[in-house]
Amino acid sequence: MKLIFIGDIVGSPGRRAIKEKLSYLKSKYNPHIIIANAENSASGRGITHAIARQLFEQGIHGITMGNHTWDNKEIFDFIDDEPRMIRPANFPPGTPGRGYTVIKANGKELAIVNLQGRTFLPAIDCPFRAADEIVDELRQNHKCILVDFHAEATSEKIAMGWHLDGRASLVVGTHTHVQSNDDRILPGGTAYLTDAGMVGPRDGILGMQQEGVLYRFKTQLPSRFNVDEEGKWHFHGVYVDIDEETGHARKIEKIRLMEDEWRME
Amino acid sequence: MKLIFIGDIVGSPGRRAIKEKLSYLKSKYNPHIIIANAENSASGRGITHAIARQLFEQGIHGITMGNHTWDNKEIFDFIDDEPRMIRPANFPPGTPGRGYTVIKANGKELAIVNLQGRTFLPAIDCPFRAADEIVDELRQNHKCILVDFHAEATSEKIAMGWHLDGRASLVVGTHTHVQSNDDRILPGGTAYLTDAGMVGPRDGILGMQQEGVLYRFKTQLPSRFNVDEEGKWHFHGVYVDIDEETGHARKIEKIRLMEDEWRME
Amino acid sequence: MKLIFIGDIVGSPGRRAIKEKLSYLKSKYNPHIIIANAENSASGRGITHAIARQLFEQGIHGITMGNHTWDNKEIFDFIDDEPRMIRPANFPPGTPGRGYTVIKANGKELAIVNLQGRTFLPAIDCPFRAADEIVDELRQNHKCILVDFHAEATSEKIAMGWHLDGRASLVVGTHTHVQSNDDRILPGGTAYLTDAGMVGPRDGILGMQQEGVLYRFKTQLPSRFNVDEEGKWHFHGVYVDIDEETGHARKIEKIRLMEDEWRME
Amino acid sequence: MKLIFIGDIVGSPGRRAIKEKLSYLKSKYNPHIIIANAENSASGRGITHAIARQLFEQGIHGITMGNHTWDNKEIFDFIDDEPRMIRPANFPPGTPGRGYTVIKANGKELAIVNLQGRTFLPAIDCPFRAADEIVDELRQNHKCILVDFHAEATSEKIAMGWHLDGRASLVVGTHTHVQSNDDRILPGGTAYLTDAGMVGPRDGILGMQQEGVLYRFKTQLPSRFNVDEEGKWHFHGVYVDIDEETGHARKIEKIRLMEDEWRME
Ligand SMILES: [Fe+2]
Ligand SMILES: [Fe+2]
Ligand SMILES: [Fe+2]
Ligand SMILES: [Fe+2]
Ligand SMILES: [Fe+2]
Ligand SMILES: [Fe+2]
Ligand SMILES: [Fe+2]
Ligand SMILES: [Fe+2]
Repeated sequence: MKLIFIGDIVGSPGRRAIKEKLSYLKSKYNPHIIIANAENSASGRGITHAIARQLFEQGIHGITMGNHTWDNKEIFDFIDDEPRMIRPANFPPGTPGRGYTVIKANGKELAIVNLQGRTFLPAIDCPFRAADEIVDELRQNHKCILVDFHAEATSEKIAMGWHLDGRASLVVGTHTHVQSNDDRILPGGTAYLTDAGMVGPRDGILGMQQEGVLYRFKTQLPSRFNVDEEGKWHFHGVYVDIDEETGHARKIEKIRLMEDEWRME
Repeated sequence: MKLIFIGDIVGSPGRRAIKEKLSYLKSKYNPHIIIANAENSASGRGITHAIARQLFEQGIHGITMGNHTWDNKEIFDFIDDEPRMIRPANFPPGTPGRGYTVIKANGKELAIVNLQGRTFLPAIDCPFRAADEIVDELRQNHKCILVDFHAEATSEKIAMGWHLDGRASLVVGTHTHVQSNDDRILPGGTAYLTDAGMVGPRDGILGMQQEGVLYRFKTQLPSRFNVDEEGKWHFHGVYVDIDEETGHARKIEKIRLMEDEWRME
Repeated sequence: MKLIFIGDIVGSPGRRAIKEKLSYLKSKYNPHIIIANAENSASGRGITHAIARQLFEQGIHGITMGNHTWDNKEIFDFIDDEPRMIRPANFPPGTPGRGYTVIKANGKELAIVNLQGRTFLPAIDCPFRAADEIVDELRQNHKCILVDFHAEATSEKIAMGWHLDGRASLVVGTHTHVQSNDDRILPGGTAYLTDAGMVGPRDGILGMQQEGVLYRFKTQLPSRFNVDEEGKWHFHGVYVDIDEETGHARKIEKIRLMEDEWRME
Repeated sequence: MKLIFIGDIVGSPGRRAIKEKLSYLKSKYNPHIIIANAENSASGRGITHAIARQLFEQGIHGITMGNHTWDNKEIFDFIDDEPRMIRPANFPPGTPGRGYTVIKANGKELAIVNLQGRTFLPAIDCPFRAADEIVDELRQNHKCILVDFHAEATSEKIAMGWHLDGRASLVVGTHTHVQSNDDRILPGGTAYLTDAGMVGPRDGILGMQQEGVLYRFKTQLPSRFNVDEEGKWHFHGVYVDIDEETGHARKIEKIRLMEDEWRME
C-alpha cells in the first residue's frame, strides 16, 4: 500500500499549494491514500467545515490535527460528524471528535492515529500509554497504521518512534513546521520521520509573516501573527510504501517541493 | 571560501565518527575551515580539555558549544585560554570564555559566533540583540561570518535566519540533534539550516540509550541518561561555499552519513 | 515614612474595593504614599487611561505593572506621558514607558522600581542585573526605595529579597494574586513579602470566574477567562514604615480585608 | 476531629524543628492526627527509611510527598511496605507506593490524598480527574479527607480547592515552601490554604543556601544547591478542626513559628 502524508497545511497559501500540486504527486507516487495535517489550514488557526470539505474534495482522504485543533470554534459543530478527521487521541475522555479512525480508499485500509506530545506543550494525557492502548487495539484488525505524533521536542518524537517500532507502519511528526532529514525504516519495520514539515508560505516564520514574529522576539511586546499571504509556498510531506502482509514499511521518501524552482528528493 | 560545519558531537561514538570520516569529507569538499559543535562530546555532557585537543588535532579548526557547555567542570580550567572554542555569546557579562572568535586556516578567515535561544531553554540575554552587536562589530573587518544558533524552537531559529539575512554568511542551528531538511540561501545571501543534526549514536534518542529516555517518558520516574556506546553512528553537518568578496553564500549542502550503509545528499 | 503597597487590582470589583476601603486604610495607617499594582485593573487585562486617572484621583500616588502591562493597547497612547506609572524595568531598551520613577507626596519621596521575573514567565532581560543598575543609581539620591518584583516562582522572589537586602526599603512580590504569609524585615533592613496578594473578586480564581478556569484545567479546551464581576472582593496589600535616615524598614504589616466580614492582620 | 498538617520539611534543620516544636503544638492544639509533607526531608532531596521512621516516632501519623519523592533512591526499597506514606496519586499506573491511604490515630480516621500539579511541573496524569476518582471512592466510607495538592501555580491550586469544595475536609497546597495568607473555609465546607509553607532553614532560599541559588540566577552557570544547615529554622503548617458528622471544616488556622522570636497566628 502506498501512502502520502502531508505536513501542517498553513492558511490559504497552503491550501493553494495542495490544489496546485496534488495531481502531480498522485501521478508521481500513485498513492492509494493521502493524509494531511490541517491544524493551521484556516488562517493559521484551526480548520473550518468548508476547508475540510474542500481538502476532501481535492483528494485528501483523512485529516489529522494538533494543538491548534480548537482555534477555530466552528470545529465544535462538525468534528463529531466527520469520521475522516481526527484530533489528538490523548485529550481527556469526553473531548469532542475522535483520536483515531480507519480510512478506506482505492481498495485499501489505513488506520490513522493522532497523538500530541507533552514536552514544551500543554499537559494532557500520556501519549505513550495512549499509543499502547490504541495501536494494540487497532492491530487486532489492521496491519497498516499511521501515527501522526504532533509534538515539539525531538527527544519525545524519536522516543515515540522506538516505542511503536514494529507496531505502526509509519510514525511521523508534525508541529515544528520544519521537515527533518532523518527519514529511515527502524529495525522493527516502522517508517519514521521526526517532522513532515509544513505546506504554506515559504518566506515567513512557520508560515506567519516575519515582521510580527521578529517584533515579538525582539521587543517581548504583543504582536499579532498573520499568515504570510503574499509569499510563495513550499510543500512538505512524506511518501511511504507499506507491505500489507506485515504492515512493515518497505520504503520512505521525503517530499519537498517549492512553488517555482521546486525540487524533489 | 569553503567550510564545513558539524552538528553536536555526542560521546565516544561521535568522536569515533569524526575520526573515521573527516578525511573523506576533506577529500570530497576541500573545505578551508571545519567547525564543530562539541557541547556533548564528553559522555554526552560538556567537553574536556583532552577531547578539545583531540578534535583540533583531527582537523577541526573551531568549536562551538551550547546549553551543555558547563556540564563538565573541567571547562572552567581551559576555556579562557582556548581562543578556538566559543560558548553562547548571550550568557551574562563575566561568563568565562568568549562568544565569538576568528578562525584562520588554509589562508582563510572565518568569524564564528555562538548564540543560545531562550524558547524552551533557560532565560539568558536576548540572542537577537547579541547578534546585532556582535555581527555588526565583526562586519567591520570580516566578510565571512558563521553563526551557530543553539536553540530548540524552529520559530526562534528561523527568526534568527531572517534577522541576520545579508549580515551573516551562514546561520545554522544546533541542539535538537536532528538535521532539518530546509537548507536554503535566503534572499539577502545568508545560507540557512534550522539544525545541522548530530554526530553520534544512531539508534539512541539524541545519542542517549533508548531505555533510559523511554523509561522517563513512560513512568515520569528519574532515570540516568547514558550515551549509547554500542550502537553505530550517524554523522550530520553542512557544507557551505562563501563568496569572500561579499560574504554571501554561493552554495549550501547538507551532509548526512551513516556508519555502514551511509549515504550523502 | 509610611507607605502602603497594594497588590494586583483586578477588574471592576478590584476598583470598587479601592474606592470603598482606601479612606479606611488612610485613617488607620496614615500613609504618606500609596502605590498599587494595576496590571489587571481593566477587565483583568492591562489598564486604560481612564482607570489610571481614576486610581490617581482616589489617592494612589504611583502605579506598577507586570506581564499584563500591554494587554490593553490603550497603554501605548499614554504610558510615555505618565511619570507616575512604571512597567517592568527589565524589558528591552526602547520599550515604551519607564521602569522606575520617584513619587513625591505629602512631603515625602519614594523611589519605585518595577521588575519582572523570568522563571515560568517570558524571557526578558535579567532582573537581578537590572536591579543592581537601577537601585545603585537611585541610591545616590534616595534612601527610600520600593521594588515591586512581579514574578511567579517563590525561589526567584526570595532570591531578589536577599539580593537587594540593605539596598531597598521594601521588596514586595506581585503576580500570583495570593498573599504570602512571610512578611519580615531581612537582616540588612529590607522589608520583604513574597507576594502582596490581589484586590478583587474573592470567589474566583485569581479574580477570574471559576467556571472558565476549571473548564480549561479539566478539558484542556480553550475557554475565555472573564473577571468574576458578581462576587465579593478581598483586598490585599502591605504597610511599611521606613526610617528615612537609613532607608531601612522599621515595620512591615500585611493588609487583608474582605468585603463583608473583613479582618485585618 | 482536630488535625495538623505540616508543610515541606527541609533537611536536618527541618527535622530539628519538628523535634523541638511538636510537643508544643500538641499541647496547644490537641490534634488527633498530624500529617507532614516530607519530600525534602533528606538533605533537601527525598526521604530515607530512617528519616521516615524518625518522623513517625516523633508523632507524625502520615507523610505526603511531591515532585522530589524519588530524589533519594532508598525510597524504592520501602515505599511499598509503608502504608502511612503516600506519593502523588496521579503518577502513572504501576508507580511504586500509593497515592492515598487512611490514617488511624487517637480513635480517629483521616483519609489522606496526595496530588501533584502540572502547571510549571512535569506532565503527569490529570490531578483533577484523579481527585474525582479517589475522593469519590473515599467518600463512600470516610467523611474526613485531607488533600495535599503539591503544585506551583496559584491558579491550579485554587482551582483544586473549588473543584473539591464540599467533598474534602481540607485542601492544602505544598511545594512553593512559602506559606500563603489565604486560609478560609469555602462555601461547601472545605478548609483551604494555597500553601502550608515549609519547615526548615529560614535565611536560605526555599531552605537552600542563598549563595548557590543567587549564583545560578545571576550567572546562569550550574551551582549545587545545599541545605542551609547553619541557619535558624521557621516552621509552617495549618491546624484544622473538622466536624466528623459532615466532614466539613469548622476552623482553619495557620501555624507559623520561628526558632527564637517565634510568633503564632
Ligand atoms: Fe502545532
Ligand atoms: Fe502546525
Ligand atoms: Fe544543547
Ligand atoms: Fe546537543
Ligand atoms: Fe496580576
Ligand atoms: Fe502578572
Ligand atoms: Fe516540591
Ligand atoms: Fe518541597
